[in-house]
Amino acid sequence: MDSQDFREFGKAMVDYIADYLDTIRERNVIPSVEPGYLQELLPKEAPAQGENWKDVLLDVERAIMPGVTHWHSPYFNAYYPTANSYPGIVGEMLSAGIGCIGFSWMSSPACTELEVIMMNWLGKLIDLPEVFLNCSDGPGGGVIQGSASEATLVGLLSAKEKIVKDLRKSNPDLTEADIKGKLVAYTSDQANSSVEKAGLLASVPMIHLPTDNCILRGETLREAIRRDREAGLIPCYVVATLGTTGTCAFDNLEELGLVCNEENLWLHVDAAYAGSAFVCPEYRHLMKGIELCDSFNFNPHKWMLVNFDCSPMWVKNSQYLVEAFNVDRIYLKHQHEGHAPDYRHWQIPLGRRFRSLKLWFVLRIYGIEGIQKHIRTQIDLAKHFEQLVCSDRRFEVATSSMGLVCFRLKGEDNLTQILLDKITANKKVYIIPCHYQGKLVLRFVICARTTTVDDVNTSWSEIVFQANEIIPRSQIIVEAEKSKLDTLGIATSRDPSNILMEKSK
Amino acid sequence: MDSQDFREFGKAMVDYIADYLDTIRERNVIPSVEPGYLQELLPKEAPAQGENWKDVLLDVERAIMPGVTHWHSPYFNAYYPTANSYPGIVGEMLSAGIGCIGFSWMSSPACTELEVIMMNWLGKLIDLPEVFLNCSDGPGGGVIQGSASEATLVGLLSAKEKIVKDLRKSNPDLTEADIKGKLVAYTSDQANSSVEKAGLLASVPMIHLPTDNCILRGETLREAIRRDREAGLIPCYVVATLGTTGTCAFDNLEELGLVCNEENLWLHVDAAYAGSAFVCPEYRHLMKGIELCDSFNFNPHKWMLVNFDCSPMWVKNSQYLVEAFNVDRIYLKHQHEGHAPDYRHWQIPLGRRFRSLKLWFVLRIYGIEGIQKHIRTQIDLAKHFEQLVCSDRRFEVATSSMGLVCFRLKGEDNLTQILLDKITANKKVYIIPCHYQGKLVLRFVICARTTTVDDVNTSWSEIVFQANEIIPRSQIIVEAEKSKLDTLGIATSRDPSNILMEKSK
Repeated sequence: MDSQDFREFGKAMVDYIADYLDTIRERNVIPSVEPGYLQELLPKEAPAQGENWKDVLLDVERAIMPGVTHWHSPYFNAYYPTANSYPGIVGEMLSAGIGCIGFSWMSSPACTELEVIMMNWLGKLIDLPEVFLNCSDGPGGGVIQGSASEATLVGLLSAKEKIVKDLRKSNPDLTEADIKGKLVAYTSDQANSSVEKAGLLASVPMIHLPTDNCILRGETLREAIRRDREAGLIPCYVVATLGTTGTCAFDNLEELGLVCNEENLWLHVDAAYAGSAFVCPEYRHLMKGIELCDSFNFNPHKWMLVNFDCSPMWVKNSQYLVEAFNVDRIYLKHQHEGHAPDYRHWQIPLGRRFRSLKLWFVLRIYGIEGIQKHIRTQIDLAKHFEQLVCSDRRFEVATSSMGLVCFRLKGEDNLTQILLDKITANKKVYIIPCHYQGKLVLRFVICARTTTVDDVNTSWSEIVFQANEIIPRSQIIVEAEKSKLDTLGIATSRDPSNILMEKSK
Repeated sequence: MDSQDFREFGKAMVDYIADYLDTIRERNVIPSVEPGYLQELLPKEAPAQGENWKDVLLDVERAIMPGVTHWHSPYFNAYYPTANSYPGIVGEMLSAGIGCIGFSWMSSPACTELEVIMMNWLGKLIDLPEVFLNCSDGPGGGVIQGSASEATLVGLLSAKEKIVKDLRKSNPDLTEADIKGKLVAYTSDQANSSVEKAGLLASVPMIHLPTDNCILRGETLREAIRRDREAGLIPCYVVATLGTTGTCAFDNLEELGLVCNEENLWLHVDAAYAGSAFVCPEYRHLMKGIELCDSFNFNPHKWMLVNFDCSPMWVKNSQYLVEAFNVDRIYLKHQHEGHAPDYRHWQIPLGRRFRSLKLWFVLRIYGIEGIQKHIRTQIDLAKHFEQLVCSDRRFEVATSSMGLVCFRLKGEDNLTQILLDKITANKKVYIIPCHYQGKLVLRFVICARTTTVDDVNTSWSEIVFQANEIIPRSQIIVEAEKSKLDTLGIATSRDPSNILMEKSK
């Protein structure tokens, strides 16, 4: 394929993507395929001769799209958002076009330097203390990781090396194996599965501490540390969550920070989803205590319009990362070492894409105000959804926070489970469950960048439509009215449908 | 930015990328910037209001390009290639446009299914034994990792969990810490730095075994295992390299495989660069013994035209990965579990991009024959370079393999070092050094997809031009001629320039 073909193919793909996103509401958000569907549509081997790009593009629509879960449909209200924006997509294109590998400054200076500057822009945008920024005088700095999972693991591995060094300095007789075999880390019972996975991968037990209304408190941590130290263990790392996966709860960072500082534990903050809200000053009280943390991570690739993957992580002292990860070779050395971060020492893989380009495109083309507007709009839409839920007496809101509303049908869990199953089977709206205070709840998240009030109303209509098949609205209203009239001592003998008609006036 | 703006911006970017790659030879491959250059060109904070995309695109050329090391210039002959092709770029665009996250089958069925099928296509293309393929009856299968670093680490972490389980089954009194504190892993002294880093991250000492002409042999491994078992250690993992970073040497897989199978060690194969050559049957003898390995990894994002990142890894038994990595939650469960791989259990992060799209595009648009042609052309170009080196008596070829030629100026290392410094300072050709048999050599790699014989000649001219400033060609010729004439017993008194002119006829 020569560059002329690319100009045609690339432009056809730009139109295909624009058409796809323009008309995404017309597709069911959940695909109607069974496992193995694609094997029936594609050959078992690669073709011997090259094919025309037009045939490949036709097959995207024929074979791929029927099996896509449409994360950017406004009716995708599951998990948390994954970001997608036009500037983000074009930034990704340029990154692929330049195709450099930024493992050292020398391997492509612009790749390292733009990342350094973007981490400063972004850190200032969410009002991170200066100590975390590359532009501060100290050893702090920011780097783009691929995911929150990696950031959590990088923090843990750094904390692990740090405590081994600290302890062997004061107790030279201790072996590395002695120490590593006794390390423990903590997080809350609400933390994302990736936190537990980090513990598994690093061979450090990750203890899930109980929460107070989904919030991890300082005293709980302090007590756990005391108990484990008494048992001869060595606490080394805490992961606090700002915006938990289940219910978007915020751990009490200030309390946890004070305990970690007193006890010399590394405090990592996972703000994967909710961190983007800190671009708005009115939400920054939720990160109070941030100055007490050792590392902080959030995902602009979730809620801040930058296409996956872009997971910035800031640390107070990057030297701990470099000490844990540095394994240099002659072929990686260059004359400018020390003048700019060699980011390969800040992460797990050696190779790295030019990911800061898409962040730069998004920050410039939206501007700070555009990004703030996006966050505020999405939170307003969630509030609108919450009002819709509250307006229907069959439902109750369990909890809500940011762009997430957790709700359920009143009564036993099985009603809510049946509702979820019916919604999922109909494929028009995608929501997923979680547990809150011992009860099954449904998580409704504003995800797509393009979501409007009408879209939220449409999602809600589908939920109501399915609920009507389980608990007819009339029944609820009759019961409620009957109860009210009973209370007033008035006999109830009217036809329920009359009451329903009166209510709907 | 609305979709109409995106159509304009996206198409302008397609043209920008095509123009960039069409005219890449006009730029110096090494940029002329000093650390910190970009801080002078960009503001210190993100803009308050959004900017026009046209201004951003202008700034790409003004601020970014002067700091880019041009990995796709034919005069980039450093490291190993990172792939870039037009189908790969367009595949990356579509991946960004769809923007789904494929952590489970349900989260986007097409994402998992296309990856399963592509891993079969690719496995067949390089003639991997069927036991490694998803389409086999057994527990084997392939997955796309982000990098060889990750694949090596995933293999090590799986091997670590496996040996702990194996040993605790036979010795229930052993604690996990007892075992983990004694684990050791092996690789050769030629292995990539990422292998050592995997050991560091997994807290398993990675022992570098000596090589025989850069090749790790079975007896060396057997002896190391014997020695370490005697010392009370527990050997668990071996990383063999097919195509080492320094000189593209191939470990003796068959010998290593037999030892690992006898001794119950996990054998992982890192064929990051050279694995792509196995699409050509004439190079498959270099992977003899592959059936004895537990996991195999190579990077189509290096030499097989698929843009970074795309690092397929196949394992004989995926259950070991799932057991090491599975930490499930209610929000990740779905009704189709077990019918298709949930790839989140096969990798470090939870999130994953739709990376198989670009692989599919490349395999279809090039076809098997197109990919074979690419590999063979690049190897032929390396042979052409080798002939050029051999034609100049000041130089010697130390070793060559695949698309790599290691060469040097005859004599002391400092001559070669000066040559390298001069070439790098002139920024027209990018090569890097390594050590081979105790001597400094320069690695010349055919990297860019578009490299022609003329390009290789141009790179060579630059090398000769710089060499002429160190050792004038005339001097060498005079000395050589003198030595020849001396041998023949003929007095030498002619003007050196005459000899030079005769030679150049």
